[in-house]
Amino acid sequence: MSYDPNNVFAKILRGELPKFQVYEDARTLAFMDVMPQAEGHTLIIPKLAASQDILDVPVEDLEAVIATTQKVARAVKTAMDAPGVMVLQLSGAPAGQTVFHLHFHVIPRFHGLELKFHARSMEAPEKLKANADKIKAALAA
Amino acid sequence: MSYDPNNVFAKILRGELPKFQVYEDARTLAFMDVMPQAEGHTLIIPKLAASQDILDVPVEDLEAVIATTQKVARAVKTAMDAPGVMVLQLSGAPAGQTVFHLHFHVIPRFHGLELKFHARSMEAPEKLKANADKIKAALAA
Repeated sequence: MSYDPNNVFAKILRGELPKFQVYEDARTLAFMDVMPQAEGHTLIIPKLAASQDILDVPVEDLEAVIATTQKVARAVKTAMDAPGVMVLQLSGAPAGQTVFHLHFHVIPRFHGLELKFHARSMEAPEKLKANADKIKAALAA
Repeated sequence: MSYDPNNVFAKILRGELPKFQVYEDARTLAFMDVMPQAEGHTLIIPKLAASQDILDVPVEDLEAVIATTQKVARAVKTAMDAPGVMVLQLSGAPAGQTVFHLHFHVIPRFHGLELKFHARSMEAPEKLKANADKIKAALAA
Protein backbone atom coordinates (compact mmCIF):
# COMPACT_ATOMS: atom_id res chain seq x y z
CA MET A 1 0.00 0.00 0.00
CA SER A 2 1.42 3.37 -0.96
CA TYR A 3 1.00 6.67 0.87
CA ASP A 4 -2.43 8.25 0.29
CA PRO A 5 -2.00 12.04 -0.01
CA ASN A 6 -5.66 12.48 0.92
CA ASN A 7 -5.38 11.02 4.40
CA VAL A 8 -6.72 13.21 7.21
CA PHE A 9 -3.30 14.33 8.49
CA ALA A 10 -2.10 15.25 4.99
CA LYS A 11 -5.21 17.42 4.72
CA ILE A 12 -4.45 18.99 8.10
CA LEU A 13 -0.88 19.70 6.91
CA ARG A 14 -2.24 21.39 3.76
CA GLY A 15 -4.67 23.46 5.85
CA GLU A 16 -7.69 21.75 4.32
CA LEU A 17 -8.93 20.58 7.72
CA PRO A 18 -8.86 22.43 11.04
CA LYS A 19 -6.64 21.41 13.97
CA PHE A 20 -6.08 22.29 17.61
CA GLN A 21 -2.34 22.86 17.37
CA VAL A 22 0.00 22.80 20.36
CA TYR A 23 3.46 22.91 18.69
CA GLU A 24 5.18 23.30 15.34
CA ASP A 25 8.77 23.40 14.14
CA ALA A 26 10.52 22.92 10.78
CA ARG A 27 9.91 19.16 10.60
CA THR A 28 7.07 18.39 13.01
CA LEU A 29 3.54 19.36 14.04
CA ALA A 30 1.65 18.50 17.24
CA PHE A 31 -2.11 18.81 17.70
CA MET A 32 -4.98 17.39 19.74
CA ASP A 33 -6.51 14.01 18.86
CA VAL A 34 -10.19 14.84 18.20
CA MET A 35 -11.24 11.40 19.48
CA PRO A 36 -9.06 11.26 22.57
CA GLN A 37 -8.45 8.13 24.64
CA ALA A 38 -7.93 10.45 27.61
CA GLU A 39 -8.12 14.21 28.07
CA GLY A 40 -4.99 15.84 26.70
CA HIS A 41 -4.34 13.09 24.10
CA THR A 42 -1.99 14.72 21.59
CA LEU A 43 -0.55 13.59 18.24
CA ILE A 44 2.87 14.36 16.73
CA ILE A 45 3.51 13.99 12.99
CA PRO A 46 6.29 14.70 10.49
CA LYS A 47 5.52 17.61 8.15
CA LEU A 48 7.89 16.83 5.31
CA ALA A 49 7.85 13.04 5.05
CA ALA A 50 5.08 11.29 3.12
CA SER A 51 5.44 8.33 5.47
CA GLN A 52 2.77 5.91 6.55
CA ASP A 53 4.38 4.62 9.70
CA ILE A 54 7.61 4.03 11.64
CA LEU A 55 8.74 1.47 9.07
CA ASP A 56 9.02 3.80 6.07
CA VAL A 57 9.89 7.20 7.59
CA PRO A 58 13.36 8.71 6.91
CA VAL A 59 15.36 8.48 10.13
CA GLU A 60 15.97 12.26 10.31
CA ASP A 61 12.21 12.87 10.31
CA LEU A 62 11.72 10.12 12.89
CA GLU A 63 14.35 11.71 15.15
CA ALA A 64 12.64 15.09 14.81
CA VAL A 65 9.27 13.52 15.63
CA ILE A 66 10.58 11.79 18.78
CA ALA A 67 12.29 15.00 19.96
CA THR A 68 8.95 16.83 19.61
CA THR A 69 7.19 13.89 21.25
CA GLN A 70 9.46 14.32 24.27
CA LYS A 71 8.62 18.05 24.50
CA VAL A 72 4.91 17.31 24.16
CA ALA A 73 5.03 14.44 26.70
CA ARG A 74 6.57 16.76 29.30
CA ALA A 75 3.99 19.46 28.53
CA VAL A 76 1.01 17.08 28.56
CA LYS A 77 2.15 15.65 31.90
CA THR A 78 2.35 19.15 33.37
CA ALA A 79 -0.78 20.51 31.71
CA MET A 80 -3.02 17.59 32.64
CA ASP A 81 -1.31 17.02 36.02
CA ALA A 82 -0.85 13.39 34.98
CA PRO A 83 1.31 11.01 37.05
CA GLY A 84 2.07 8.92 33.96
CA VAL A 85 2.37 9.31 30.20
CA MET A 86 2.05 6.72 27.44
CA VAL A 87 3.74 7.16 24.06
CA LEU A 88 2.26 4.96 21.38
CA GLN A 89 2.90 4.44 17.68
CA LEU A 90 0.78 2.02 15.67
CA SER A 91 2.00 0.74 12.31
CA GLY A 92 -0.55 -1.03 10.14
CA ALA A 93 -4.29 -1.63 10.46
CA PRO A 94 -3.74 -4.87 12.46
CA ALA A 95 -1.94 -2.74 15.06
CA GLY A 96 -4.93 -0.39 15.25
CA GLN A 97 -3.66 2.35 12.93
CA THR A 98 -6.53 4.32 11.37
CA VAL A 99 -4.79 7.27 9.67
CA PHE A 100 -1.92 6.29 7.41
CA HIS A 101 0.42 9.22 7.97
CA LEU A 102 3.01 8.42 10.67
CA HIS A 103 1.89 9.69 14.07
CA PHE A 104 2.96 9.27 17.67
CA HIS A 105 0.32 9.42 20.40
CA VAL A 106 1.01 11.07 23.76
CA ILE A 107 -1.67 9.98 26.24
CA PRO A 108 -1.74 11.08 29.90
CA ARG A 109 -2.25 8.16 32.28
CA PHE A 110 -3.73 8.01 35.75
CA HIS A 111 -3.87 5.13 38.24
CA GLY A 112 -7.07 3.17 37.76
CA LEU A 113 -8.42 5.20 34.84
CA GLU A 114 -9.00 2.97 31.85
CA LEU A 115 -8.35 4.24 28.34
CA LYS A 116 -11.36 4.90 26.14
CA PHE A 117 -11.68 3.08 22.86
CA HIS A 118 -10.01 5.15 20.18
CA ALA A 119 -11.89 6.80 17.36
CA ARG A 120 -15.31 6.15 18.83
CA SER A 121 -16.48 9.51 20.10
CA MET A 122 -15.63 13.03 19.04
CA GLU A 123 -14.57 15.41 21.82
CA ALA A 124 -16.28 18.81 22.10
CA PRO A 125 -14.25 21.48 20.27
CA GLU A 126 -14.24 23.82 23.29
CA LYS A 127 -12.76 21.04 25.44
CA LEU A 128 -10.08 20.32 22.81
CA LYS A 129 -9.24 24.01 22.60
CA ALA A 130 -9.02 24.33 26.40
CA ASN A 131 -6.65 21.34 26.63
CA ALA A 132 -4.56 22.62 23.70
CA ASP A 133 -4.24 25.98 25.47
CA LYS A 134 -3.07 24.27 28.68
CA ILE A 135 -0.48 22.22 26.79
CA LYS A 136 0.74 25.26 24.82
CA ALA A 137 1.17 27.14 28.11
CA ALA A 138 3.21 24.24 29.52
CA LEU A 139 5.36 24.15 26.37
CA ALA A 140 6.04 27.87 26.67
CA ALA A 141 6.88 27.70 30.38
CA MET B 1 12.09 9.60 42.40
CA SER B 2 15.69 9.31 41.22
CA TYR B 3 17.21 6.69 38.93
CA ASP B 4 17.82 3.37 40.71
CA PRO B 5 21.11 1.87 39.43
CA ASN B 6 19.93 -1.57 40.57
CA ASN B 7 16.94 -1.77 38.22
CA VAL B 8 16.78 -4.89 36.05
CA PHE B 9 17.91 -3.19 32.83
CA ALA B 10 20.87 -1.53 34.55
CA LYS B 11 21.88 -5.01 35.73
CA ILE B 12 21.51 -6.34 32.19
CA LEU B 13 23.71 -3.48 30.92
CA ARG B 14 26.38 -4.36 33.51
CA GLY B 15 26.21 -8.03 32.54
CA GLU B 16 24.86 -9.03 35.93
CA LEU B 17 21.72 -10.57 34.40
CA PRO B 18 21.40 -12.56 31.16
CA LYS B 19 19.61 -11.30 28.05
CA PHE B 20 18.48 -12.52 24.66
CA GLN B 21 20.13 -9.77 22.61
CA VAL B 22 19.08 -8.89 19.06
CA TYR B 23 21.04 -5.66 18.42
CA GLU B 24 23.65 -3.37 19.94
CA ASP B 25 25.39 -0.16 18.88
CA ALA B 26 27.30 2.58 20.66
CA ARG B 27 24.27 4.09 22.40
CA THR B 28 21.55 1.41 22.35
CA LEU B 29 20.79 -2.21 23.15
CA ALA B 30 17.84 -4.34 22.01
CA PHE B 31 16.80 -7.64 23.60
CA MET B 32 13.77 -9.87 24.09
CA ASP B 33 11.14 -9.07 26.72
CA VAL B 34 11.14 -12.16 28.95
CA MET B 35 7.43 -11.67 29.71
CA PRO B 36 6.24 -10.93 26.19
CA GLN B 37 2.80 -9.55 25.33
CA ALA B 38 3.16 -11.33 21.99
CA GLU B 39 5.85 -13.54 20.47
CA GLY B 40 8.74 -11.42 19.25
CA HIS B 41 8.15 -8.65 21.83
CA THR B 42 11.47 -6.77 21.93
CA LEU B 43 12.80 -3.93 24.10
CA ILE B 44 15.16 -1.10 23.13
CA ILE B 45 17.09 0.85 25.78
CA PRO B 46 19.78 3.53 25.94
CA LYS B 47 23.16 2.23 27.19
CA LEU B 48 24.75 5.48 28.34
CA ALA B 49 21.87 7.46 29.83
CA ALA B 50 20.78 6.81 33.41
CA SER B 51 17.25 7.81 32.41
CA GLN B 52 14.01 6.56 33.86
CA ASP B 53 11.72 7.43 30.98
CA ILE B 54 11.09 9.63 27.95
CA LEU B 55 10.78 12.70 30.16
CA ASP B 56 14.33 12.74 31.54
CA VAL B 57 16.43 11.20 28.75
CA PRO B 58 18.97 13.40 26.88
CA VAL B 59 17.57 14.01 23.38
CA GLU B 60 20.64 12.51 21.64
CA ASP B 61 20.08 9.22 23.47
CA LEU B 62 16.37 9.37 22.69
CA GLU B 63 17.12 9.86 18.99
CA ALA B 64 19.52 6.91 19.04
CA VAL B 65 16.90 4.76 20.77
CA ILE B 66 14.18 5.61 18.23
CA ALA B 67 16.54 4.93 15.30
CA THR B 68 17.26 1.48 16.77
CA THR B 69 13.54 1.04 17.46
CA GLN B 70 12.86 1.58 13.76
CA LYS B 71 15.46 -1.04 12.79
CA VAL B 72 14.03 -3.49 15.32
CA ALA B 73 10.41 -2.80 14.27
CA ARG B 74 11.26 -3.64 10.66
CA ALA B 75 13.11 -6.80 11.73
CA VAL B 76 10.38 -7.95 14.14
CA LYS B 77 7.73 -7.45 11.43
CA THR B 78 9.76 -9.57 9.02
CA ALA B 79 10.88 -12.19 11.53
CA MET B 80 7.45 -12.77 13.02
CA ASP B 81 5.63 -12.27 9.70
CA ALA B 82 3.46 -9.71 11.46
CA PRO B 83 1.04 -7.49 9.50
CA GLY B 84 1.26 -4.77 12.17
CA VAL B 85 3.70 -3.46 14.75
CA MET B 86 3.06 -1.47 17.92
CA VAL B 87 5.73 0.78 19.45
CA LEU B 88 5.03 1.64 23.07
CA GLN B 89 6.82 3.65 25.72
CA LEU B 90 5.41 3.90 29.23
CA SER B 91 6.57 6.63 31.59
CA GLY B 92 5.62 6.27 35.23
CA ALA B 93 3.95 3.50 37.22
CA PRO B 94 0.44 4.90 36.50
CA ALA B 95 1.21 4.36 32.80
CA GLY B 96 2.13 0.74 33.49
CA GLN B 97 5.93 1.13 33.66
CA THR B 98 7.52 -1.62 35.76
CA VAL B 99 11.28 -1.17 35.12
CA PHE B 100 12.54 2.35 35.62
CA HIS B 101 15.19 2.54 32.93
CA LEU B 102 13.82 4.07 29.71
CA HIS B 103 12.66 1.40 27.28
CA PHE B 104 10.66 1.25 24.08
CA HIS B 105 8.56 -1.84 23.36
CA VAL B 106 8.23 -3.27 19.85
CA ILE B 107 5.27 -5.66 19.77
CA PRO B 108 4.13 -7.52 16.63
CA ARG B 109 0.38 -7.23 16.07
CA PHE B 110 -2.04 -9.49 14.26
CA HIS B 111 -5.70 -9.00 13.39
CA GLY B 112 -7.88 -10.40 16.15
CA LEU B 113 -5.05 -11.49 18.45
CA GLU B 114 -5.35 -9.82 21.82
CA LEU B 115 -2.25 -8.75 23.72
CA LYS B 116 -1.37 -10.72 26.85
CA PHE B 117 -1.12 -8.94 30.15
CA HIS B 118 2.44 -7.76 30.61
CA ALA B 119 4.75 -9.16 33.26
CA ARG B 120 2.47 -12.02 34.21
CA SER B 121 4.13 -15.08 32.73
CA MET B 122 7.74 -15.85 31.88
CA GLU B 123 8.40 -17.15 28.38
CA ALA B 124 10.47 -20.33 27.95
CA PRO B 125 14.16 -19.47 27.34
CA GLU B 126 14.37 -21.68 24.22
CA LYS B 127 11.40 -19.82 22.71
CA LEU B 128 13.00 -16.44 23.52
CA LYS B 129 16.28 -17.58 21.98
CA ALA B 130 14.51 -18.85 18.82
CA ASN B 131 12.69 -15.54 18.37
CA ALA B 132 15.88 -13.55 19.05
CA ASP B 133 17.65 -15.60 16.38
CA LYS B 134 14.88 -14.89 13.85
CA ILE B 135 15.01 -11.15 14.59
CA LYS B 136 18.82 -11.07 14.41
CA ALA B 137 18.63 -12.79 11.02
CA ALA B 138 16.13 -10.18 9.79
CA LEU B 139 18.38 -7.37 11.09
CA ALA B 140 21.35 -8.84 9.23
CA ALA B 141 19.44 -9.35 5.97
